[in-house]
Amino acid sequence: MGPLVTLLTDFGDGSGYPAQMKGVLLSAAPDARIVDLSHGVPAFDVLAGALLLESCVPWFPADAIHVAVVDPGVGTSRRALVVVDAEGRRLLGPDNGLLTPFLGPGARAHALDASGVLPDLRSATFHGRDLFAPAAAWLARGGDPSGLGPAVADPVRLRWPEASVSEGEVEGEVLAADGFGNLVTSIRERDIAAAGDGPVRGVFVAGRPVRWVRTFGEGAPGELLAMFGSGGRVEIAVREGNASAGLGRVRGLKVRVSLRG
Amino acid sequence: MGPLVTLLTDFGDGSGYPAQMKGVLLSAAPDARIVDLSHGVPAFDVLAGALLLESCVPWFPADAIHVAVVDPGVGTSRRALVVVDAEGRRLLGPDNGLLTPFLGPGARAHALDASGVLPDLRSATFHGRDLFAPAAAWLARGGDPSGLGPAVADPVRLRWPEASVSEGEVEGEVLAADGFGNLVTSIRERDIAAAGDGPVRGVFVAGRPVRWVRTFGEGAPGELLAMFGSGGRVEIAVREGNASAGLGRVRGLKVRVSLRG
Amino acid sequence: MGPLVTLLTDFGDGSGYPAQMKGVLLSAAPDARIVDLSHGVPAFDVLAGALLLESCVPWFPADAIHVAVVDPGVGTSRRALVVVDAEGRRLLGPDNGLLTPFLGPGARAHALDASGVLPDLRSATFHGRDLFAPAAAWLARGGDPSGLGPAVADPVRLRWPEASVSEGEVEGEVLAADGFGNLVTSIRERDIAAAGDGPVRGVFVAGRPVRWVRTFGEGAPGELLAMFGSGGRVEIAVREGNASAGLGRVRGLKVRVSLRG
Repeated sequence: MGPLVTLLTDFGDGSGYPAQMKGVLLSAAPDARIVDLSHGVPAFDVLAGALLLESCVPWFPADAIHVAVVDPGVGTSRRALVVVDAEGRRLLGPDNGLLTPFLGPGARAHALDASGVLPDLRSATFHGRDLFAPAAAWLARGGDPSGLGPAVADPVRLRWPEASVSEGEVEGEVLAADGFGNLVTSIRERDIAAAGDGPVRGVFVAGRPVRWVRTFGEGAPGELLAMFGSGGRVEIAVREGNASAGLGRVRGLKVRVSLRG
Repeated sequence: MGPLVTLLTDFGDGSGYPAQMKGVLLSAAPDARIVDLSHGVPAFDVLAGALLLESCVPWFPADAIHVAVVDPGVGTSRRALVVVDAEGRRLLGPDNGLLTPFLGPGARAHALDASGVLPDLRSATFHGRDLFAPAAAWLARGGDPSGLGPAVADPVRLRWPEASVSEGEVEGEVLAADGFGNLVTSIRERDIAAAGDGPVRGVFVAGRPVRWVRTFGEGAPGELLAMFGSGGRVEIAVREGNASAGLGRVRGLKVRVSLRG
Repeated sequence: MGPLVTLLTDFGDGSGYPAQMKGVLLSAAPDARIVDLSHGVPAFDVLAGALLLESCVPWFPADAIHVAVVDPGVGTSRRALVVVDAEGRRLLGPDNGLLTPFLGPGARAHALDASGVLPDLRSATFHGRDLFAPAAAWLARGGDPSGLGPAVADPVRLRWPEASVSEGEVEGEVLAADGFGNLVTSIRERDIAAAGDGPVRGVFVAGRPVRWVRTFGEGAPGELLAMFGSGGRVEIAVREGNASAGLGRVRGLKVRVSLRG
């Protein structure tokens, strides 16, 4: 079977831009098997793209190649990267923090800058097609990441939204809403475990109490619920409803989980 | 060639959830070939999902494996099923009626409940990734549906919207609007054949007369038309226009076809 | 590796219609590898579909088969075509101008009309599934385009939007907005080269001056910019913003590029 290549962008499914990337990939690496992670990242929202990558990439075989393009700085002097994380996963994307989840201990990065391997840029505005897709094809044909350019010691990292843990309490924030309107937060299961042994006794979103449940099914229709979501984070949801509707911009809303009586 | 696996969900294309399912599938069944039926089923709309399955599945090779997840009851005690229909097609989904079109005579169903074959659930809210994708991978690797769990004698069936046929007349209802705004109804070609020999002489939607044509091209721009759609059902359409625009909720609108002079 | 088949339609990703086409293709040509160009062409917008084809097809291997369905006249007497362009690329679609970019010198066209090769039409309204997908499968299995029907000398061509070039000046129009709201125009790099040697000194959209830059990064947030886009055409954009927002219907807006001091 051919190498697996995934794509994540903010181009929109209808745009034709992801297809142009696929055409370049399949021209240079004809046996590549391409899977879309998402092309619906909100335009220019690097954090949303990074969170989507973090939630999707670990489910794929470790030898997959991941191409991510949310790139408001395309055409400026921002670098382009290939990252190899501690598990050996290979990711390509702009050096703007999009790959932050894979830049932990043991990761290494190279700047894409290899004439002879990579083609001259055809456009100043579409590195997805003209730089990252050719680089992915080169990896897919067996190229080593270090051949794509010089090592980079200081890749850009986003301030990653982590929860604040104290005895009996965890404070965090809403990161994004998913397609159902469920609010995904910065509070992880391990944060709550670190806060103490007791069960969760209270959850508050922007100061408003929310009922803690194990799953949607325990809620009444319309009731705001909090639970562990499928990504291991606390989520706020409404059974068969949309928790984000009417909230406007949800990112940054404060969330507090208390283990106190 | 590897086994064909199709996916239908209400997750939305941009969400990353379908991609997580694909990652699990390709990790466990690396040669699977995955095709999206749709991820745009309206959230929690089990009937809309069932109708989409009914319209798409028969066009695929009979040995394809179909995974369908429209699952408002995830995390409750609802069962999860594998169904083998009379034609030998294999479908996986929640036991909430989503698979109704394939539960006719000759079908058999098993509840997914096989420790040793299926992994422990990682989440209470994402059975698409944590239960159905692993089960599909197991089938894709050659596993028999009966190995996934005990037989189920009473799978949930939706009240399926069927037309009412009398001499010279068929009464039905609008089921859904497609992406063009065409209204798909519960009245099938065979219902009209069963009502009599004569040609269609009158079609009425919510009491309003609509012109019967063979195809869009016979209509004037803006005119409401009725015809046999590509799924063998009566559809209501506007030539180069949107029949559902301005109608609000279309499901349930009464439709009557008359063969009387 | 199996033959590559691309699909472009105005059906919408959520509709299930592209999936029906894929089922037919994979039933008749099981080793076909299918890539979506886009299913988000605005409904019935033949020019938008043609522009998307023009921007995507050249990036694919020349032996790929391209199926395009934007077909307001389905079910009328309009012909259905297979086109082989001067580079040997094969395209299938309705004879309504959708394939215009590939109908230049050296192209040939055949009308799809081959009983024995193509199945009887099951529907009058879904030629994508019932005519074009079987024809694509036939090509994918090695069939020659000329076997699909008689040669056509006069395929329908759209009036293709070309810029008007004079000494020191190019006049054109906005063709479409992409998913970021960037406005794609009819003015190409070669048009500006033909107008003279000097640098671009002024760009005007509907009479309003716009700053000429090499890339987004040179603009201030909110500023209207003009530059060469990734398709080799002049585009109008806003850095990290949406140039089309608030403009209503953008197609046809006049654009002027001046090389005069």
